[in-house]
Amino acid sequence: MRIVVLAGGIGGARFLRGLLSAVPDAEITVIGNTGDDIHLFGLKVCPDLDTVMYTLGGGINEDQGWGRTDESFTVKEELAAYGVGPSWFGLGDRDFATHIVRTQMIDAGYPLSAVTEALCDRWQPGVRLLPMSDDRVETHVAVNDPETGERRVIHFQEYWVKLRASLDAEAVVPVGAEQAKPAPGVLEAIAAADVILLPPSNPVVSIGTILAVPGIREAVAQAAAPVVGLSPIVGGSPVRGMADKVLAAVGVESTASAVALHYGPGLLDGWLVDTSDADAVETVTAAGIACRAVPLMMTDTDATAAMARAALELAEQAR
Amino acid sequence: MRIVVLAGGIGGARFLRGLLSAVPDAEITVIGNTGDDIHLFGLKVCPDLDTVMYTLGGGINEDQGWGRTDESFTVKEELAAYGVGPSWFGLGDRDFATHIVRTQMIDAGYPLSAVTEALCDRWQPGVRLLPMSDDRVETHVAVNDPETGERRVIHFQEYWVKLRASLDAEAVVPVGAEQAKPAPGVLEAIAAADVILLPPSNPVVSIGTILAVPGIREAVAQAAAPVVGLSPIVGGSPVRGMADKVLAAVGVESTASAVALHYGPGLLDGWLVDTSDADAVETVTAAGIACRAVPLMMTDTDATAAMARAALELAEQAR
Repeated sequence: MRIVVLAGGIGGARFLRGLLSAVPDAEITVIGNTGDDIHLFGLKVCPDLDTVMYTLGGGINEDQGWGRTDESFTVKEELAAYGVGPSWFGLGDRDFATHIVRTQMIDAGYPLSAVTEALCDRWQPGVRLLPMSDDRVETHVAVNDPETGERRVIHFQEYWVKLRASLDAEAVVPVGAEQAKPAPGVLEAIAAADVILLPPSNPVVSIGTILAVPGIREAVAQAAAPVVGLSPIVGGSPVRGMADKVLAAVGVESTASAVALHYGPGLLDGWLVDTSDADAVETVTAAGIACRAVPLMMTDTDATAAMARAALELAEQAR
Repeated sequence: MRIVVLAGGIGGARFLRGLLSAVPDAEITVIGNTGDDIHLFGLKVCPDLDTVMYTLGGGINEDQGWGRTDESFTVKEELAAYGVGPSWFGLGDRDFATHIVRTQMIDAGYPLSAVTEALCDRWQPGVRLLPMSDDRVETHVAVNDPETGERRVIHFQEYWVKLRASLDAEAVVPVGAEQAKPAPGVLEAIAAADVILLPPSNPVVSIGTILAVPGIREAVAQAAAPVVGLSPIVGGSPVRGMADKVLAAVGVESTASAVALHYGPGLLDGWLVDTSDADAVETVTAAGIACRAVPLMMTDTDATAAMARAALELAEQAR
């Protein structure tokens, strides 16, 4: 079975771990969001790709869900001693090595997809990890400065990590997406897929960014494979992170049904909502999307594997 | 008193510490060798500049004479885990931060001299540290491959650090030096100096490289200030390092007098040899270079300060 998964960071990575547990023999291609990439200290940092790679490769800090386990922060402290920031982005020493290798390869002319493949040589994530694009896309967020009242456009990471989404997002713009091309293999994997899954990743800044690369949304919508998503909203609030903030920016309510309708029946064939959102099933089904309510909390790998199996079952029904 | 010092790495840095102790109120400009610079992992590493900066700024690993104190090697281990080398160059985590800041600034368009000044803002070395040039110069060494018998040209650091000068150096070439220009302030500092000192640094790959930048040798030779050097050869062998190997490549014997004559009376006004090389005094003096024998082992700061005072006294006599 060939499965394509559009993945953001923590939610996508944890879902993938469950999926690999559920169907260890499946041939899984992950199309990773690169819209939260950021250049820090002259280095190219790809948080979502790395979170998937570290999680599936056994190097993730399990408690925080991102970054490396057994991490130290000597380089960061030294950079701060030079007065060089930002200090709000937590790059550890182990993590720095990844960004140094990546940047060195990119400066040598390798596209991000080739770099990602080289990094995965070490981590052996058990999936084929493709960036959504080799072209630079960096999501920015427009906010109203509470002091001046003026609109400022800031990098997504500044909004998410530094400000912790404490201001309303007035707009979310994946800068560069319009000019970006899908990375080699992305459209081919979508076309050849038996199933396409949207994990409970952020619908706006993770999966939404992937779909914003011209050609990808169309390919997913037109794929022969059923497309099944899992709601990142449980009981009216994001399971993790601050997805409600960026959903509001695109005019979508933070409900399991609203997110399904945001993706739309043109894209989705099936949608899983949490058992606590069972009342959404009717609305979503009425919109032409097959829908089931199952437990959607990724409390451990077994629970997540059950979610993955439910998604695959719904895909079979929707086929 | 305005003193200009042409400095390599460890020897230069330790001499400077003694000089600062001897004449704390002097205005010292250090013209640092950048010929042993190397690009590693996409980062610009300037070992000699950093050794001076760390030594005078209190961050040096005193035992080894280079690198940072209290150092860890997490980044390097992680790079090795990615299969990315070289592994023979000991970059520690604290040190990495310096190279990251430097590379980021250079990529942003700042010349090395401005970057060095910015780094020194943190370290406050008590001297004005100038790279010999803002242009890229990297010393290479020609060796005969013992297996194939063929000549290979390798980076100085590969020769020095990886091979530990175990092969004869057939030639030493500061690649890029001919096209390099002295960094801003270098010629002005030399012209304005009251004294110019050549510490017991490597005469070929440290001071020789600085003098190879067009304009610097001429400026030193023509300066109004007396030029006094300290022999890096004591009792027929280098005090530290493997200077004999690269002296042989330029046809110079490893003796205190041969090094003085290599610099020549056109450059040197005075030369200090170690008391164990007192027999060199006559030869050097006969060549037209004022010469004295004093203890030249930099065993501690006091001993080194005494060497610095002896050099300044000889400069007064040679004036």
